[in-house]
Amino acid sequence: MKIVVQKYGGSSVADTTKIMKIAERLKQKVNDGNKLAVVVSAMGKTTNKLLKLSKEITKKPSPRELDMLVTTGEQIAASLLTMALIEIGIKAKSLNAFQAGISTTSNHTDANIKDIATEKLKNFLNNNDVIIITGFQGITKDHDITTLGRGGSDTSAVAIASALNAPCEIYSDFPGIFTTDPRLFPEAKKLKHITYDEIMEMSRLGANVLHPRAVEIAKKYNTPLYCGATFSDEEGTIIDNKENLENPVVTGMSIMVKQTQVTITNLPTDHAVVNNIFAYLGERNINIDMISIIHLNDNLNLSFTYIEDDQNYFEDVMENLKFEFHECEIKYSHGCTKISIVGLGMRSEKGVASRFFQALKNIHVELVTTSEIKISALINKKYMQDAINALAKEFKL
Amino acid sequence: MKIVVQKYGGSSVADTTKIMKIAERLKQKVNDGNKLAVVVSAMGKTTNKLLKLSKEITKKPSPRELDMLVTTGEQIAASLLTMALIEIGIKAKSLNAFQAGISTTSNHTDANIKDIATEKLKNFLNNNDVIIITGFQGITKDHDITTLGRGGSDTSAVAIASALNAPCEIYSDFPGIFTTDPRLFPEAKKLKHITYDEIMEMSRLGANVLHPRAVEIAKKYNTPLYCGATFSDEEGTIIDNKENLENPVVTGMSIMVKQTQVTITNLPTDHAVVNNIFAYLGERNINIDMISIIHLNDNLNLSFTYIEDDQNYFEDVMENLKFEFHECEIKYSHGCTKISIVGLGMRSEKGVASRFFQALKNIHVELVTTSEIKISALINKKYMQDAINALAKEFKL
Repeated sequence: MKIVVQKYGGSSVADTTKIMKIAERLKQKVNDGNKLAVVVSAMGKTTNKLLKLSKEITKKPSPRELDMLVTTGEQIAASLLTMALIEIGIKAKSLNAFQAGISTTSNHTDANIKDIATEKLKNFLNNNDVIIITGFQGITKDHDITTLGRGGSDTSAVAIASALNAPCEIYSDFPGIFTTDPRLFPEAKKLKHITYDEIMEMSRLGANVLHPRAVEIAKKYNTPLYCGATFSDEEGTIIDNKENLENPVVTGMSIMVKQTQVTITNLPTDHAVVNNIFAYLGERNINIDMISIIHLNDNLNLSFTYIEDDQNYFEDVMENLKFEFHECEIKYSHGCTKISIVGLGMRSEKGVASRFFQALKNIHVELVTTSEIKISALINKKYMQDAINALAKEFKL
Repeated sequence: MKIVVQKYGGSSVADTTKIMKIAERLKQKVNDGNKLAVVVSAMGKTTNKLLKLSKEITKKPSPRELDMLVTTGEQIAASLLTMALIEIGIKAKSLNAFQAGISTTSNHTDANIKDIATEKLKNFLNNNDVIIITGFQGITKDHDITTLGRGGSDTSAVAIASALNAPCEIYSDFPGIFTTDPRLFPEAKKLKHITYDEIMEMSRLGANVLHPRAVEIAKKYNTPLYCGATFSDEEGTIIDNKENLENPVVTGMSIMVKQTQVTITNLPTDHAVVNNIFAYLGERNINIDMISIIHLNDNLNLSFTYIEDDQNYFEDVMENLKFEFHECEIKYSHGCTKISIVGLGMRSEKGVASRFFQALKNIHVELVTTSEIKISALINKKYMQDAINALAKEFKL
């Protein structure tokens, strides 16, 4: 039994016409001798519509009830796609998380998959050509419904593929993975291949292609991934652990907008103070990204970034911080952009950082962070397009 | 622990404003010392919208997938109402059919409840003030999702009340049960009380108040029912098995429109022929209602009614019938109305039939059927209003 796992995102199943087209695609694949386990997201804007209803009732919905609410979206898409398959003569069955045996931890709205009932799924595949599984959701040992957080349907698909020891194909509106976001840099090239490590860095750095958690699972189980366009035969991108000697030094570039830089000056040079500040922010669920610390005379100056999603709340937190360390001064720089280059080749190739800064020579870089396979720079958003163009030219992206 | 079961229909939970109002009502009831098990239907037109999606894909959707699809509607309503309760400080939890342990037969779209996990529900009620249960749905032993057919949420509520040995309150837009449909006869009176047997006949005869299956379960377990308006303090109607000596002879009147009368003449007098005709129609899922057979000379004439919901299909079936009994002639009379009076008092009181026909003396009655507690007449729809007025006046409805 040759099993393939596929995942279709929300815009691929946005209406019944698209659902019927996907059914025809699946029929072709079945006729080619495959058994399919297909993971679907909710149709188009369904999840947002459901969230809007919950917001009409409360600003802070019970996480358990929120999961109960939004998981209906995938069940709708799964049952409609299954109907469409049965209509064209394919033996198919839809399965929600409980029926598919997708066990998760109990942290609602951001649960982790603990186990998948592999034998149960294989049994369903023995009796059907296609099983359609609701993405994004799971079930706790107490039979509460959970969701997997952002990018959850990718995670479902990769986890199911890993459990079934099958390859996983992720379909969306994008025909594959590009060197950088084509909306920001139209000349971006589509990659034929990228490694788990590279796509993971790119995803973390803002490329909205695949959720890092999904890639992590694929890497752990060495599950081959493929990203392609739902309604096109154009060749997509293969993701696996094979390093290609011919690969370029820099594989891709990621852009994250809406960054705020916070600079705190006049702190005492006691390092415990910095630890306390980060502990204080961590306890309040504020995620800090790039960090730079500079000692100047008898003072310590700290600069870091966070994503502008909950700004008012953040500034409240910072005002309280000021109250604790009353000597310090806090400055904000809103609307920054983080631009990063990623590539396995950077591990061995020297001079990449120098080429990076040379390319950005006319642009004021506010903060820099590096890892083994990436360099990130924080810049004012007015320089964003110039920086994209310069780096794409320098690294042939 | 004083438990009350309540059921809210689709129009009662049609939007989030109404859902929040219901939450306030439930809070009041909790503060009065009750534990509540609340059954909800899908919000407003949700079920119709879901059915419309399925119709875009296929005229004949897989019943299993149809159940998978439409049951999301109740889950949405249940989670939103639970959020609203938690928001105002009430300990609440939503439960779908699987979580509530509502086991059914496996005949999709029209399943019957086999068992309810009473201890599980009591446990949920021990740990919460209110549990909100999705109506209309159940789960098979293989964990497939089923629905209970028309009036399914009423059936869910009454079955849960019966299992918990609690009274059941059914809330809708109607402030109770009327002697007849107030839309057809605005002077109809609201009943303070009616017996299970009477409401069952009235429901079967076209009163859209409570589904007969729900009443049957209530009667079997002697579960007290109450029907009232969701957003009003007006007194509703109590339904139980207590016969009141002071009750009128006729309690109510039911009207069913869209009846077709079929008359077949020139059949052989062999009674097996009639049996064959009904077996033939039964196999094709055509439900026959009123039946009259008259022998005339050496021929047999048969007349019966059915509800005009699948007319074209029905006439195809009848044409084939003609082919089998080629001597016979088939006549159709479309758009008839069945008008019925119901009352426990008819069992003992004489002359009710005579009063019935006297009231209808200027109206041509096409067919008549009677039972212990009702008389039904089929009439041309143009006489409907006259017949309603005459019978309401005669029996003081």
